Amino acid sequence: MKGFGIIHPGKSVGWLEKDKPKAGLLDAVLEPIAITPCSSDVHSAFEVGDLPWLHNRILGHEVVGRIIEVGGSVKDFKVGDVVVVPAATPDWLCPDIEDGPVGHTNKMGGAVRLSNTIDGGLAEFVMVPQADMNLALLPDNVSLESACMCTDMVPTGFRGADMANIQYGDDVCVVGIGPVGLMALLGAKLRGASNIFAVGSRPNCVALAREYGANEVLNYKDGPIEEQVLKLTKNKGVDRVIIAGGGPKVVEQAFKMTKWGATIANIDMYTDPKGINIPLLAAGFGIGDKKFVGGLCFGGRRYTERFLKMVACGRIDPSKMITHRFEGLDSAEKAFNLMHNKPADLIKPFIRM
Amino acid sequence: MKGFGIIHPGKSVGWLEKDKPKAGLLDAVLEPIAITPCSSDVHSAFEVGDLPWLHNRILGHEVVGRIIEVGGSVKDFKVGDVVVVPAATPDWLCPDIEDGPVGHTNKMGGAVRLSNTIDGGLAEFVMVPQADMNLALLPDNVSLESACMCTDMVPTGFRGADMANIQYGDDVCVVGIGPVGLMALLGAKLRGASNIFAVGSRPNCVALAREYGANEVLNYKDGPIEEQVLKLTKNKGVDRVIIAGGGPKVVEQAFKMTKWGATIANIDMYTDPKGINIPLLAAGFGIGDKKFVGGLCFGGRRYTERFLKMVACGRIDPSKMITHRFEGLDSAEKAFNLMHNKPADLIKPFIRM
Amino acid sequence: MKGFGIIHPGKSVGWLEKDKPKAGLLDAVLEPIAITPCSSDVHSAFEVGDLPWLHNRILGHEVVGRIIEVGGSVKDFKVGDVVVVPAATPDWLCPDIEDGPVGHTNKMGGAVRLSNTIDGGLAEFVMVPQADMNLALLPDNVSLESACMCTDMVPTGFRGADMANIQYGDDVCVVGIGPVGLMALLGAKLRGASNIFAVGSRPNCVALAREYGANEVLNYKDGPIEEQVLKLTKNKGVDRVIIAGGGPKVVEQAFKMTKWGATIANIDMYTDPKGINIPLLAAGFGIGDKKFVGGLCFGGRRYTERFLKMVACGRIDPSKMITHRFEGLDSAEKAFNLMHNKPADLIKPFIRM
Amino acid sequence: MKGFGIIHPGKSVGWLEKDKPKAGLLDAVLEPIAITPCSSDVHSAFEVGDLPWLHNRILGHEVVGRIIEVGGSVKDFKVGDVVVVPAATPDWLCPDIEDGPVGHTNKMGGAVRLSNTIDGGLAEFVMVPQADMNLALLPDNVSLESACMCTDMVPTGFRGADMANIQYGDDVCVVGIGPVGLMALLGAKLRGASNIFAVGSRPNCVALAREYGANEVLNYKDGPIEEQVLKLTKNKGVDRVIIAGGGPKVVEQAFKMTKWGATIANIDMYTDPKGINIPLLAAGFGIGDKKFVGGLCFGGRRYTERFLKMVACGRIDPSKMITHRFEGLDSAEKAFNLMHNKPADLIKPFIRM
Repeated sequence: MKGFGIIHPGKSVGWLEKDKPKAGLLDAVLEPIAITPCSSDVHSAFEVGDLPWLHNRILGHEVVGRIIEVGGSVKDFKVGDVVVVPAATPDWLCPDIEDGPVGHTNKMGGAVRLSNTIDGGLAEFVMVPQADMNLALLPDNVSLESACMCTDMVPTGFRGADMANIQYGDDVCVVGIGPVGLMALLGAKLRGASNIFAVGSRPNCVALAREYGANEVLNYKDGPIEEQVLKLTKNKGVDRVIIAGGGPKVVEQAFKMTKWGATIANIDMYTDPKGINIPLLAAGFGIGDKKFVGGLCFGGRRYTERFLKMVACGRIDPSKMITHRFEGLDSAEKAFNLMHNKPADLIKPFIRM
Repeated sequence: MKGFGIIHPGKSVGWLEKDKPKAGLLDAVLEPIAITPCSSDVHSAFEVGDLPWLHNRILGHEVVGRIIEVGGSVKDFKVGDVVVVPAATPDWLCPDIEDGPVGHTNKMGGAVRLSNTIDGGLAEFVMVPQADMNLALLPDNVSLESACMCTDMVPTGFRGADMANIQYGDDVCVVGIGPVGLMALLGAKLRGASNIFAVGSRPNCVALAREYGANEVLNYKDGPIEEQVLKLTKNKGVDRVIIAGGGPKVVEQAFKMTKWGATIANIDMYTDPKGINIPLLAAGFGIGDKKFVGGLCFGGRRYTERFLKMVACGRIDPSKMITHRFEGLDSAEKAFNLMHNKPADLIKPFIRM
Repeated sequence: MKGFGIIHPGKSVGWLEKDKPKAGLLDAVLEPIAITPCSSDVHSAFEVGDLPWLHNRILGHEVVGRIIEVGGSVKDFKVGDVVVVPAATPDWLCPDIEDGPVGHTNKMGGAVRLSNTIDGGLAEFVMVPQADMNLALLPDNVSLESACMCTDMVPTGFRGADMANIQYGDDVCVVGIGPVGLMALLGAKLRGASNIFAVGSRPNCVALAREYGANEVLNYKDGPIEEQVLKLTKNKGVDRVIIAGGGPKVVEQAFKMTKWGATIANIDMYTDPKGINIPLLAAGFGIGDKKFVGGLCFGGRRYTERFLKMVACGRIDPSKMITHRFEGLDSAEKAFNLMHNKPADLIKPFIRM
Repeated sequence: MKGFGIIHPGKSVGWLEKDKPKAGLLDAVLEPIAITPCSSDVHSAFEVGDLPWLHNRILGHEVVGRIIEVGGSVKDFKVGDVVVVPAATPDWLCPDIEDGPVGHTNKMGGAVRLSNTIDGGLAEFVMVPQADMNLALLPDNVSLESACMCTDMVPTGFRGADMANIQYGDDVCVVGIGPVGLMALLGAKLRGASNIFAVGSRPNCVALAREYGANEVLNYKDGPIEEQVLKLTKNKGVDRVIIAGGGPKVVEQAFKMTKWGATIANIDMYTDPKGINIPLLAAGFGIGDKKFVGGLCFGGRRYTERFLKMVACGRIDPSKMITHRFEGLDSAEKAFNLMHNKPADLIKPFIRM
């Protein structure tokens, strides 16, 4: 079968020819019917280095598909079912999941398997391990576009809001309003935030940030973000920050723009080898009761079903983030390049297979 | 001064003549400018029994007022400020508040002072203890109607949603859609619920429940509530219940309509001496990992400011619950009787002083 | 093979002859080398009613055994390993575990499989499902007696202390000082309780309660327990109660002996069809911020390993609870009868196979 | 009156002559009867810089005293009472305490008033603000030595264990075994840790660490701490780290010695202007679900009473940390110098006034 992916990590992407996958006893094989490329596909291809498991690796971990084969021990799904595949498909038979958090099984980040340690969905077929535990049925009234958003953008963004431990009436700053940041913002509203200050500048993102609930959208060009936030909060600072872009320097800004007792939640993946710096005074000499926590989305069936239900109920409409639409597997290359080059009007591309 | 209140608890209400209150060092005296009678005013007058502190007690604990006197140690407020008074004004100099929850200082429920152990706001003047800790400035863009709702209905309802420990995508049932239940419902939506099933039948309340986010409104007349909920959830039950009306039998229904691991949060005040019964099987023989918790609203300045900010930001509009409007202190009697008689079209009355 | 169990639930127990179990792909078959009968074995045999799955059911869910067969997909264990089997062996391939709590998979309480829905360990052989997820290797320096206690008594008792949400310095009452209550008491000490008041009267239990950390042991015969506790706390009441015996009336007492904001955690299984009653005034009319929660022990490999490590480190010595020792499978009947008849000097019997 | 304190911050300490303090309405004046100098007294004197409020500031915030004057509004204490004064005496009339954490009122760290913004206890007399909220009666069976430890060492160390969110059976590393680290270690044991690895080298501290519950005491001289911890845990890392010494580089080590999902709690005050660095890989590129949190002890009456009760019950004996004993106020200088010079056999000095 044909798939689009990494040929040589750090060097080249392209079309790969691979054997059609087989379902193990607990697994399912799907024919993708909708898929959205992710900026982590670009990270894997060009930024994280020459990792052995990324050679000849088909990309794509935001997939809706139709089941064409199920393993003999699968109970809840059958051939023909249209299912949503979460970006993180934990190994539920690894004892690590007993201790949680479930994004990490067998190794740190190990639950993110599709497009990473096994082939992803930018292909004619894709295998999903432990189908009963890792697939969610597509509800009738959820569009393919929204469903694709429930695989990664929604759970990652909402996880940020969740880690930030937002309480009713908290002032929240969301730094970065790409698709993950936009979902963090929506997630913050749905945990009860009052003021939400978003940081970003791309016009489509700014408009959607306002629509999803940002009271103010701050632009880096108007001065240091932390100063803008302190001014808006009359020098008190916000109660919570969710970081969804901008690199490790944003952590410093986040400490500076928060009140004691604040939680700073990171969902941005850092690759700068200098690491993360926490500034002395803003951290109250290390004892200012500020928390810093960074994590990735959970995954699995039930977590995905939660967000699909929120779409089905009309609580959220993440499909508004789709700015570019394509048809057919062949368009995978074009859609991937879009994510790579990030034109000003892009939020998220969508491929109808 | 003149005030409307309890003459003899359990027997009679009416107009009282009292001395104008004085501010102690930490206190403030206000001239009420808006007030909303509460069903607990009716409870205190006619249902909780002949408690000595309720004799000749002016009612009313949902007040916005203009400060006319401040004690010598008040720092943050001055004469002329228009302020919102929370229903619960904890004694912040009682060590009980160090252990929390702050609704209880000096005795169980002791933070609910106005209309209970000190005179309330259905009067020409009202004294609020510990002004810096218990008053919140009325923000410019918050209406008097919404502000009155932030004293009790919003914090009580939202406390219910908070105690219910709602997670993204949870299915929630809210039993009772009077003003507190409506706010619990809105609070549940703003913690990330997916399906919200509301239980109630009064047309105005049903319409507003839908507007605030109920997916289904269930009517007692259509069969046992727990059976309706089980049917809607394909026999799984909901993840959380918030009880805001219906008496202790609702606790039994709540246990029956929930999945293991559920939290059942109560914000309804029970007066039935038989107490609360938890059914054996639905409780998993006492070990089904269901939680039952009942509490009253917090109070104090910062908690009130949280909800005022949510109104100011446009996150919530609790003023939609006002169905009846009055002018002048003299209308207090009429408004109180409305709460007592509860005509079918009533949600909440409002008095502009 | 031979095993001791239920012949007809509610009527008779005795020796059963069954086929030797086989390991499925993920499972292991063990030869028990140590086992401790549990009072829930007696419950299942005589109290919970004529449940179909209890007919001809071998009892015993507190087992240490030597592996004699592993399924083809088992990774971490091999024939000959000596392993500890938790009382609860969740089905880790059931999506319910993604939402937790893990004591319930497929149905309420469904994780308690051995001696309930599959045959238990009072037998020549026993099969444990999902070996990698549900077995823990016996550490070198943990005795068989302590290891058996880590299957059920320790995790159930400690779960009680955990649900009670004990904070440093809390006053705690533990009602019931059979083996589960004794472990709840030890667990309370190891969450930071200050005063621990235990309720019980059997001399061996009283002595061990004191050794494990009880400051006072209260006897029902000296007057209503709640009054004794209120007296000891100068009428304030305790902060937390753990209920490990005494039936549903203890819930009433617990509400009466606690301060507002208290948590009451139940680990006792109730079979009285009248259910549980919560008294009106002690519950603050339903809004006194008291929590009632009842749950069963978690299970699985990692949770069991936690307690085995605590034994290995010298933090806890649960083997002190063993009062009666037997040798050989044939003694199962005698040991079971001991649990059934509960002589005054019994805490826990132990069988070395 | 006479007191020992800072003459010029960063430059000189010595004896000061000041007016005897007066009690405001809510306050009390005490005659210290026991006091223990703290390493933060040395920090304030020589390390935090030339802060205006530290000029001519009497040191000492670990005090037991006899009340000689109470303000007119004090309810629970009277002249002659022997009371324990917490290091942190929050301003309970500052709205910041309504949002918590209570170590910060009016400004970050603002609850630490004695020896900082008001005069401390190394003096003939000391004034404590808001006596009812900030004093705890000395229980009969608590020694002056243990009581002094309950003002700062116990609450600070135990706060570390609390922030670390320790669960039963967690492996914990405590870095730094001065008096705060020793209490963190004891606190970790009393939250249910299994293995506790302590890091330190001074013989008295090492011996006491073992007595308080350390399974292993690691020495920096035997190689990088993180490598020692990884070796001891078979490369898995510990679940929690509490940092009580060693400077910001320990944060890096802590990230390297922990498993995903770990919490790293800091109670060490950093003064290195470079701030804190979090290493990239160990943080899982910022999304490894590790938490970093640093805070200071709570304070106030009820929190102090919790630890006094734990001493009174025999749960903890912090007096074992006292290595040097002095008599009389005049010895304050010698005791302070001891803290400054830290001889190898010092854990904590104690002055009986």
